[in-house]
Amino acid sequence: MVNQQFAFAVHALSLLARQYNGECTSEHMPMTSDFLASSINTNPVVVRRLLSKLSKSGLIETQLGKKGGVKLKKNPKQITLREIFESVQSKSLISENKNKENKKCVISCKMKGLMSDIIEKAEEATLKYFDSVTLAEINSKI
Amino acid sequence: MVNQQFAFAVHALSLLARQYNGECTSEHMPMTSDFLASSINTNPVVVRRLLSKLSKSGLIETQLGKKGGVKLKKNPKQITLREIFESVQSKSLISENKNKENKKCVISCKMKGLMSDIIEKAEEATLKYFDSVTLAEINSKI
Repeated sequence: MVNQQFAFAVHALSLLARQYNGECTSEHMPMTSDFLASSINTNPVVVRRLLSKLSKSGLIETQLGKKGGVKLKKNPKQITLREIFESVQSKSLISENKNKENKKCVISCKMKGLMSDIIEKAEEATLKYFDSVTLAEINSKI
Repeated sequence: MVNQQFAFAVHALSLLARQYNGECTSEHMPMTSDFLASSINTNPVVVRRLLSKLSKSGLIETQLGKKGGVKLKKNPKQITLREIFESVQSKSLISENKNKENKKCVISCKMKGLMSDIIEKAEEATLKYFDSVTLAEINSKI
């Protein structure tokens, strides 16, 4: 199970998408990590760590200063769930056997390769779905 | 990320599939948790816990006594990765936001439902792939 970062990222980016579309009042422009954290109901420190990842992957940009904050760098129609997922998720969704193979056992020796292939294909299936959903579509349901 | 139980289960069931197909010598029939643990390279206690789950879901049966152990209850051609996955995995692959919604924020209030739908569809995609692969197919690659 992944941590909550993906859920937090989709939430934060949905708020930024509303801002991008002009559906927010000017007082929230650009949005602060405190404002985002209050909607996600988590600590602003957690949000700042998340925003740093989203910034590195080019989804948002930061405006420094007293009235600073973050805003989307791309149109919500051009941001897919896959990009969001890959920005915040570095580990596999499914874990391999982390123990070394038993070299005396032919099945043990082949299993790592087989499982790695299974896990890759399972993740491809998830990513294919994530590729088909844009942030704009999510935002349209709010 | 899920724990290693799915990888362990596929490994153990692949060994049992070889036994089912008569590809093992009689000394391994039925297989003991010690034998399975040695191939997986983990603790027999971990394997016994795993076997208990696989037994509950009807994939294996246990033979008690001195020469006891486990064997498959179904033909490997009739066992899918989905059945194996669902036998050992109770949590979602992707986590929701576990914090309560911020009731003052309309986006926060809608987000749980939206994320729950996204997570469900992502898992459906994974399970659809798992449904398409049988234990017999995995075993044929060993």
